[in-house]
Amino acid sequence: MTFDPALMLDLVGVFFFAVSGSLLAARKGFDLVGSVLLGSMVGLGGGVVRDIVLNTGPPVAFTNPVYLAPPLLAAVIVYFMPRNIERSSRLLLTFDAGGLALFCITGALKALNAGMNPVAALLLGVTTAVGGGILRDVTANEVPRLFDPKDLYAIPAFVGAGLATALWNLGWFNLVTGTLSAAVVFSLRMLSLRFGWHAPLAARSWVRPRFRRG
Amino acid sequence: MTFDPALMLDLVGVFFFAVSGSLLAARKGFDLVGSVLLGSMVGLGGGVVRDIVLNTGPPVAFTNPVYLAPPLLAAVIVYFMPRNIERSSRLLLTFDAGGLALFCITGALKALNAGMNPVAALLLGVTTAVGGGILRDVTANEVPRLFDPKDLYAIPAFVGAGLATALWNLGWFNLVTGTLSAAVVFSLRMLSLRFGWHAPLAARSWVRPRFRRG
Amino acid sequence: MTFDPALMLDLVGVFFFAVSGSLLAARKGFDLVGSVLLGSMVGLGGGVVRDIVLNTGPPVAFTNPVYLAPPLLAAVIVYFMPRNIERSSRLLLTFDAGGLALFCITGALKALNAGMNPVAALLLGVTTAVGGGILRDVTANEVPRLFDPKDLYAIPAFVGAGLATALWNLGWFNLVTGTLSAAVVFSLRMLSLRFGWHAPLAARSWVRPRFRRG
Repeated sequence: MTFDPALMLDLVGVFFFAVSGSLLAARKGFDLVGSVLLGSMVGLGGGVVRDIVLNTGPPVAFTNPVYLAPPLLAAVIVYFMPRNIERSSRLLLTFDAGGLALFCITGALKALNAGMNPVAALLLGVTTAVGGGILRDVTANEVPRLFDPKDLYAIPAFVGAGLATALWNLGWFNLVTGTLSAAVVFSLRMLSLRFGWHAPLAARSWVRPRFRRG
Repeated sequence: MTFDPALMLDLVGVFFFAVSGSLLAARKGFDLVGSVLLGSMVGLGGGVVRDIVLNTGPPVAFTNPVYLAPPLLAAVIVYFMPRNIERSSRLLLTFDAGGLALFCITGALKALNAGMNPVAALLLGVTTAVGGGILRDVTANEVPRLFDPKDLYAIPAFVGAGLATALWNLGWFNLVTGTLSAAVVFSLRMLSLRFGWHAPLAARSWVRPRFRRG
Repeated sequence: MTFDPALMLDLVGVFFFAVSGSLLAARKGFDLVGSVLLGSMVGLGGGVVRDIVLNTGPPVAFTNPVYLAPPLLAAVIVYFMPRNIERSSRLLLTFDAGGLALFCITGALKALNAGMNPVAALLLGVTTAVGGGILRDVTANEVPRLFDPKDLYAIPAFVGAGLATALWNLGWFNLVTGTLSAAVVFSLRMLSLRFGWHAPLAARSWVRPRFRRG
């Protein structure tokens, strides 16, 4: 097996999302098996949807067993976390942001390598990035974090997928520019959480956010 | 690009469903990005599932950028709606019925054109029609409207998919008969809402409906 | 149509899961159409996901109309059930266990016959087995039963998929060994319910289960 930068970024993204899934499993009182399964759904779900849409054969998460390592590792790490750290929702959001940052890049890249047009690559990058989190939150019976109007979630993913698509078309995509793009997405997401950057509400006539989770 | 009646009906259906999604996003207090995304999931979700089941290449919603226009338009329209109109659940149900009416027709048609047998075309028409609404309601953490026992939802879709399949096999399917079939489905759905037409409950022994949303 | 043991086991599994779906539909106050649809989603959903992942053409649930018989039969049976039987959650769990037992076997078998590697077959067996139940519970707006930490759900499915994969690779898979493997899975699941066998929680630091359904 030769070193493949795209595979490595993808596996790190799987790990980040899987940690967010296992942290949610812990908070919800699921067991260790549920932790591995929820981590796998979050970490691998977006990529499975992407591969099914690309329609180029069975999703890589099923055919390449190396994709099982990050969710297992994540479940073990969360299992041994001290209680006060594990309950912090900041930690869950940070790992979620890491997964988001990497998956919008690798998702767009896979779509481009499969011959999709730039718009389709942009959409698939965003779908890959937000898909796992939607699966996680819907499965745990919560309104997806994606729809929380108090910060930015999809916009950073659009930025990242757009950067990846542009870099790839210019022939400038490599491990360095890919990692930098992911860093931009991660920063944008975390800054929006820190400073409450948000988009306008879906209806002009609403005065205050009425968003309720769960 | 030549004029394609099936594409036009499909895009109108996407728009109707997308409006229902954006209206729900407004009511739930999501932001404008969430409105576009939920509208896209409702409007494009059923078709994506259909195309994945047909297994004839990447779903058209990803490869043909014209499919992005209806959800964007729907989100903008809902954004500028006056508050009293936008809060009306009748409006949401009407647009939902429009999407249902068109998608059971176009879904069955796409399946027939892809070489599926009539039963499969019927099932895929219904799946396309109800799929987006299930995604919308599950994502917004509500019990799918499809399961509300106080009116008819799936039965009109079966009627429409059956009409489309029959017309296609008789060689009579065209823009006029297709639109008429959609009008039948729409009327049936709206009349069932107006007059409370409903099917028997799932269990004979239950005396009264106990359906709770959310 | 010649006798096909794999098809027969698959149809029995669809029936078991469909009964669990129709029982939930009855309890939730859905109507008879909703009962058929929820039964179909539970009974056919896992297999549809499996076939989409295998990417070998349209899912068999759409192309072979015989797959519609079990959900219809299940909805009729539940409709005529006396109230006290139908409300028993033990009955729902027993049928669910039957579906789980058969689907982890038939799912792994289909994957192996499609040329997947043993690890992928194991994963697909488990995905097929738990997929329908996740769809059922998420659609009915409940936390999936899979994540209930008070008994074992995924572990029996892993055992069954592992047994099927091993038997197939040894050339020993047939109707007898397949049925025996399913019996092992069913027994393991039912015994875990009876005696409260469970896995460790997702986080070591939690003292008591805090699992809440719904």
